[in-house]
Amino acid sequence: MMLSRGFVQLYTGNGKGKTTAAIGLSIRAAGAGFKVLFAQFLKTAKYNEHNILAQIKNIDMKTFGRGCLIRGKPENIDYKLVLEGVKEVKKLINTTQYDLVILDEINVAVYYGLIEKDEILNLIKEKPLSLEIVLTGRYAPKEFIEVADLVTEFKEIKHYFHQGILAREGIEK
Amino acid sequence: MMLSRGFVQLYTGNGKGKTTAAIGLSIRAAGAGFKVLFAQFLKTAKYNEHNILAQIKNIDMKTFGRGCLIRGKPENIDYKLVLEGVKEVKKLINTTQYDLVILDEINVAVYYGLIEKDEILNLIKEKPLSLEIVLTGRYAPKEFIEVADLVTEFKEIKHYFHQGILAREGIEK
Repeated sequence: MMLSRGFVQLYTGNGKGKTTAAIGLSIRAAGAGFKVLFAQFLKTAKYNEHNILAQIKNIDMKTFGRGCLIRGKPENIDYKLVLEGVKEVKKLINTTQYDLVILDEINVAVYYGLIEKDEILNLIKEKPLSLEIVLTGRYAPKEFIEVADLVTEFKEIKHYFHQGILAREGIEK
Repeated sequence: MMLSRGFVQLYTGNGKGKTTAAIGLSIRAAGAGFKVLFAQFLKTAKYNEHNILAQIKNIDMKTFGRGCLIRGKPENIDYKLVLEGVKEVKKLINTTQYDLVILDEINVAVYYGLIEKDEILNLIKEKPLSLEIVLTGRYAPKEFIEVADLVTEFKEIKHYFHQGILAREGIEK
């Protein structure tokens, strides 16, 4: 099974649900018989979704990160992990086995200067026509918004974090 | 495993990704050992996510709908299915076996007058303290926004549907 034409989707904004929406889309796609590559940048395999996603035939999970950058200052290892990750994703895309590729938190990686946005724009430009790509993360650069076919802004209206609640195991992470 | 305190999450707005975010959250919660009830209103089991979600231990799927209302005019059968669905969900919540309950498209059911919003507000008011509830769908009534601990508006910035593309199997449905 194959999409006749794959689009570029962009999930951005300060609201909750961007990564979870990408996970949900992967589940739906796998359920339809599509082959999915879920690449997480800046994250490790410690997140709870891995336990389930890694078990699903049709979904390949990859993580490229230390899992502690999002609120910190980038170090050399972070640049290296992201660059190697993008290279590996490009290689995997070139095998043409995938129908859907998620680049989770790639917008944040670009925002922190860990990878040039042109690297990602090239990846999109050179993608197989039938491949659907999803870019997630707050701070999406305007070039990604321009190139995307679908853009959803996840807008935080109200959040219990403001009541002093920390990220909860199995819900936020 | 159990949450010490469950919150009420609300995913609304005209953008894509509300149901998929709820699916993703269910996967994450199941991965952490939580028990999930995923109740879909106005939908049938024909959606592709069912193939996968139904296989996952810790996730129970229920559908209460004909799958053809969203753009149509409600008929008697639609009122009946939604009301029976809410009753069944309340009964299942009372078994206290669940940590997370998704009421997918319930906002739309309320918007179309298929169920009184007070029915849902009561369900929330009477829920076990540890239960996390997620309400999805555009047109959330302001009472749901008030009662929710977390509200994300999914805002459509750009969408290929405007280019005349129909919902694609495994991606939008």
